[in-house]
Amino acid sequence: MLKFTVQKSELEEKISIASSAIGSRTVDPILQCLLFKPVGGVLRIQATDLQTSVIANVKIGEYEGNDAFAVDADLIDDIVKNLPEDEVLFEYSNGKLTIRSGKSKYNLSTVSEVERFPSIEYDESGITFSIDTSILEEMFDRVSFCASNESAMRALNGVYFEAHGGFLRLVASDGYRLALAEQKLTIDSEFDFILALKSVREIEKLLSSTTEPEIKITFDHSTVSFNAGDITTVVRVVEETFPDYKRVLPKAFKTRVILNSDDFAEALKRVMVIAKRGNEKVQLKITDDVMELSSQSSEYGEAVESIPITKDGEDLVVNFNPKFLSEAIKHIDEKEIEFNFVDNLSPLQINPRNVEGYLYIVLPVRA
Amino acid sequence: MLKFTVQKSELEEKISIASSAIGSRTVDPILQCLLFKPVGGVLRIQATDLQTSVIANVKIGEYEGNDAFAVDADLIDDIVKNLPEDEVLFEYSNGKLTIRSGKSKYNLSTVSEVERFPSIEYDESGITFSIDTSILEEMFDRVSFCASNESAMRALNGVYFEAHGGFLRLVASDGYRLALAEQKLTIDSEFDFILALKSVREIEKLLSSTTEPEIKITFDHSTVSFNAGDITTVVRVVEETFPDYKRVLPKAFKTRVILNSDDFAEALKRVMVIAKRGNEKVQLKITDDVMELSSQSSEYGEAVESIPITKDGEDLVVNFNPKFLSEAIKHIDEKEIEFNFVDNLSPLQINPRNVEGYLYIVLPVRA
Repeated sequence: MLKFTVQKSELEEKISIASSAIGSRTVDPILQCLLFKPVGGVLRIQATDLQTSVIANVKIGEYEGNDAFAVDADLIDDIVKNLPEDEVLFEYSNGKLTIRSGKSKYNLSTVSEVERFPSIEYDESGITFSIDTSILEEMFDRVSFCASNESAMRALNGVYFEAHGGFLRLVASDGYRLALAEQKLTIDSEFDFILALKSVREIEKLLSSTTEPEIKITFDHSTVSFNAGDITTVVRVVEETFPDYKRVLPKAFKTRVILNSDDFAEALKRVMVIAKRGNEKVQLKITDDVMELSSQSSEYGEAVESIPITKDGEDLVVNFNPKFLSEAIKHIDEKEIEFNFVDNLSPLQINPRNVEGYLYIVLPVRA
Repeated sequence: MLKFTVQKSELEEKISIASSAIGSRTVDPILQCLLFKPVGGVLRIQATDLQTSVIANVKIGEYEGNDAFAVDADLIDDIVKNLPEDEVLFEYSNGKLTIRSGKSKYNLSTVSEVERFPSIEYDESGITFSIDTSILEEMFDRVSFCASNESAMRALNGVYFEAHGGFLRLVASDGYRLALAEQKLTIDSEFDFILALKSVREIEKLLSSTTEPEIKITFDHSTVSFNAGDITTVVRVVEETFPDYKRVLPKAFKTRVILNSDDFAEALKRVMVIAKRGNEKVQLKITDDVMELSSQSSEYGEAVESIPITKDGEDLVVNFNPKFLSEAIKHIDEKEIEFNFVDNLSPLQINPRNVEGYLYIVLPVRA
């Protein structure tokens, strides 16, 4: 038996966050459920897809009984968000759950073998550090779009965390481009791990929904937990080795271009109209103070644009997948951007001018 | 040869409206094109899927040449909306089209056999009447959602227009429910026709995008044209007979319920959480001053709601597809609504209280 009263607004929010851990294609019905369980005076809501788990604590007043129950996450989400009053009464007994609010009443069946719900384990004695919520959110935003979407490429289908020399680096790459963001840490421990992209999405949701200014991260070699007040996201790390990304960071440049990011983004958008119907390439032709962008489609024709630049070094003609340039530019929130080229076959480094801490590497394509 | 200058903003708008006539699955590439053609000092843009056609006139200044050209609608839409400046120069010659705006330049191929573009014919000497744009838009909004989505049911997959006794009636039905809206006309002609749902969607776009206060409708027995200033939508009518809908309009009622539409909509939304996971039914149990709404799902349980009503006549228990009730209620913009019942097997009439001119009929389902 379990009986408690809860505020709709808080319950709705926590159900929504916990539900996001649930996989879209789960075979076992218990993995489509949320587990509700009183723990130490609060109601704990849990969800897991076995790789990513969310634990959300909800304030409840006095409660009777101590039973746990599991109920379909979609169903309870749909019910709670439509309830008429803020005060909601839950009564659970022998597999039957009654929810009452105002004149509304639901009599629901719950999952029979609640003890089959997977336990979520993590070791709070691991390496622990804190980071500003907004900084971590920004770092994820700057790198995660470069991760591979191919779940078969396990090492690249995620974000690499590397703590080294007092800095935390996040790196993501799909083999054609790479993003790197770094931030000073308050601890000196050295460690690294890979978070799967799906786990990253969960943590991004946690970061964007929390009002906590800091996130506490605990790493115990097989799992990492991200704690923000009432909510903890626990993630199994990917058991793979991240490629040696430092090898692809260019060392010396022969052509440096400074340009305005809006000019470039607008011109690129216009040549992409043709590129996306053609060979998915944009040619950049760099001369003294002009960059000409052009794209061809054998069926539809061609587009040509030009923008003013400041150039240092040699003239250059080089081709790229325009999507990779466009996405990198979108994630740089500075007006002045540097394009640092070695030659038309080597990786291009794109970074904000006069701002340290993040950069993008994009491989050219052949003409 | 054809050479003209045009304002981006107007061109973009007209391209967007004309493009909407283009079918999503056309086999002939010319039907994916817009035809551009100077006619009487303006630029005429045309698109057709052979059933629905749009003719949009765009202001241009002095122009040279008189050739028509056809270009892929998606491509030109994509190009024009991204152009940097408001002034756009088009130059067409021997199948090649150049578009210039600011520093942007496109060299495009056009469709070779432009004379294959279907001509759009309609007889301006047919029956003609005008109707307020906002009134026609409201009438469509009130009925078109009840039309069948099955294109094989040709007579029901559209909206029936019936002019009779100085009134225009719009009727739509999918066989399970029916919507009717009527409006006084300024002409006495008697005529009727069916507009296919796809054509209705086109005309709805015309109505929502135009700033013209009146729409001029011309009917010549095989086509209807809807003219709003610069834009004319020409539609082939469906060559079918609409069923005798007057037969299903209930005549005498045994139970009349007056209720608040928000109360009902909210309660219905909550029982639908269960209904949509169960047997897709809602039971209405009507007693003196209460309507109880309930739904069952063998897997998940049940939901029960109650709302206050004013009842005239007999008690009643009756079942409906909740979606049909919900959609009807959403289209009534009055707070006080009447449910007029004959019995639990006969069609229910739903109408706003004290407002004439539109009503909904919904068939019950068996318990």
